[in-house]
Amino acid sequence: MTCLYRGFPDAEFHARVRRAQERMGFHGLAALLLTTEPELRYYTGFLTRFWESPTRPWFVVLPASGAPIAVIPSIGRHLMSQSWITDIRTWDAPDYADDGVGLLAETLNEISAPAAQIGVAMGHESHLRMPLNSWEALRRLIGTREFCSDQEITKGLRRIKSDAEIAKIAEAAQIADRAFARVPEIAETGAPLSSVFRKFQMLCLEEGADWVAYLAGAAGRGGYGDVISPATVAPLAEGDVLMLDTGLVWDGYFCDFDRNYSLGPPAPEIAEAHHKLIDATQAAIEIAKPGRTFAELFDAMNAILNLDEGAGRLGHELGMELTEGASILPHDSRVLAPGMVLTIEPYIRICDQKIMVHEENVVIREHGAEHLSQPAPRDIAVL
Amino acid sequence: MTCLYRGFPDAEFHARVRRAQERMGFHGLAALLLTTEPELRYYTGFLTRFWESPTRPWFVVLPASGAPIAVIPSIGRHLMSQSWITDIRTWDAPDYADDGVGLLAETLNEISAPAAQIGVAMGHESHLRMPLNSWEALRRLIGTREFCSDQEITKGLRRIKSDAEIAKIAEAAQIADRAFARVPEIAETGAPLSSVFRKFQMLCLEEGADWVAYLAGAAGRGGYGDVISPATVAPLAEGDVLMLDTGLVWDGYFCDFDRNYSLGPPAPEIAEAHHKLIDATQAAIEIAKPGRTFAELFDAMNAILNLDEGAGRLGHELGMELTEGASILPHDSRVLAPGMVLTIEPYIRICDQKIMVHEENVVIREHGAEHLSQPAPRDIAVL
Repeated sequence: MTCLYRGFPDAEFHARVRRAQERMGFHGLAALLLTTEPELRYYTGFLTRFWESPTRPWFVVLPASGAPIAVIPSIGRHLMSQSWITDIRTWDAPDYADDGVGLLAETLNEISAPAAQIGVAMGHESHLRMPLNSWEALRRLIGTREFCSDQEITKGLRRIKSDAEIAKIAEAAQIADRAFARVPEIAETGAPLSSVFRKFQMLCLEEGADWVAYLAGAAGRGGYGDVISPATVAPLAEGDVLMLDTGLVWDGYFCDFDRNYSLGPPAPEIAEAHHKLIDATQAAIEIAKPGRTFAELFDAMNAILNLDEGAGRLGHELGMELTEGASILPHDSRVLAPGMVLTIEPYIRICDQKIMVHEENVVIREHGAEHLSQPAPRDIAVL
Repeated sequence: MTCLYRGFPDAEFHARVRRAQERMGFHGLAALLLTTEPELRYYTGFLTRFWESPTRPWFVVLPASGAPIAVIPSIGRHLMSQSWITDIRTWDAPDYADDGVGLLAETLNEISAPAAQIGVAMGHESHLRMPLNSWEALRRLIGTREFCSDQEITKGLRRIKSDAEIAKIAEAAQIADRAFARVPEIAETGAPLSSVFRKFQMLCLEEGADWVAYLAGAAGRGGYGDVISPATVAPLAEGDVLMLDTGLVWDGYFCDFDRNYSLGPPAPEIAEAHHKLIDATQAAIEIAKPGRTFAELFDAMNAILNLDEGAGRLGHELGMELTEGASILPHDSRVLAPGMVLTIEPYIRICDQKIMVHEENVVIREHGAEHLSQPAPRDIAVL
């Protein structure tokens, strides 16, 4: 049992920065410009729910050597000053004339040579969290310097979790385990799905979640139509399959898994579908060892699921975000490595309009996969 | 009392589209490209928490005439098909070779002439929710067409809320009112702040929130250092001021306000600070009528607060997002109009390191401001 604490020792941030700077050196990058929540938090530890507000851009500049520099709205100075970052430059945002762009350009110009290449996330799953107008202005203000791909340095580093990070994800998963075990307290025939959603989030909090960043689910006879819908007020009915899928957060780290429940004894096709989902999950977990590929996990599951062409992914990595990193897809040939945290997420088509989905979270260790979520029994839970 | 229902009648979406297309015509825009959650939801009604996953881009194209076209990952087809949108084009995301860019370019090229100007949000508070690499590829694929500013058409329309939208924000605010009234049940001397945060979110859910998208707060003797920090495990102590600030969601609409509590009788400077905050709030609300400016609200409050230069904003608009639209700033000369929903958010500096913040939500009507949150008493609440 790892001793669980909030935040990280400074040494962890130093190690992240050192690894990033090694790669930056290899690729000839003079700096990384970071604009999104997980990017900033990864190097600084800056944890706040204030990102929910779209108004202000936030920046961190990681130079080729030395500590990161925060270029942030003044409202964040007090919180950032509690991190290990000491070079904190602020402006009074929102400033319609110049919302941090001048200060950011000044900082980039100060720490890099005129011909510098400055890395920015540009690839799959990324976005630039600043207005396009500001981005164009920034490009003009850095003179002969150029923005280029960040070579996915931050994304790559984030894929290998430290033991401290894994402990936080494990904590989140255990909280969700306890909440799922209590679903019989809140879900019964006649209860509106919206009330089940609300009460399930309360259970997650009661069991220790800091917040419930994500909850989706569905209920229906013979399966459900999708897994991303919000709840309706339709009441649960005898014979329904209820699915709840949560991404709750503990100290900034997510779990992401679901559970299915049958209201009353399951129909034979539902019982069988659940068996196949668990068998597929197990098949993937059995081969999930360092050196195997994400594509191999897909194939192991699909041997049981028999999905159509274009089936979509059957899992992904997770950590500081609900979904991140590689995907369990037939064409994702990236290789598993110790420290990766995955969700194994098979689905099965019951009929034209109905599916069922199952999901577990595991961490890859030297010897293979270890469960972070408590594996669900092969038989669907009956309420 | 407006009858409260979920979603909107199709007529509301038709009206939004019609207003946008009028403005597009005026500015000579052949289409709007929409990439963010509130932009998509505003025109389509597509409501899901799945945006928490950064993996997939989502697009809606609003042509110069006719209904919006959804260009989305296939995982969203089932949910989108329940909206009023009928032209739904999907791809199997994630697709590392082409994550929707080809399909999006095809759609834009189909509905616009070769010399078309296509509007994209570029200004303050906006971002482009797609990878920069995809953006560059898209620009190449649309040929002689050009992306230009969306003239803040969507942002501008969103600032004037319909009665149905206001009813949803009012519902969110009333839920928060009831949760704040129950804070004495969960906060007492010795309780860790993290446990107060957790239990407050449970109260919000119990009182009817769909989810609690935002919670920040602080506790400290003589005030607090900032208003964006997550909770620590430090226990509440006699003499502390506790502040909780929530943005909870009902049917996709936010409230955003806070409440302060004194643990035990307040020190004189705390009691006085709270009086000034309420007086400042009241001063702003009294003049918050159509035709007055956001800057005037700032001045009305600052006559009581006496803040330094660069004080930051004392409120903002809200609705589909926690913060949106104009800001209560000395240099925001935008004019109040009926249907705007604002948070009035004065703060006061108690000493060098400590502040206190108060916040209320109001809607602007023809005759002036109406409270959406139940106005807090002038005396700070005592626990």
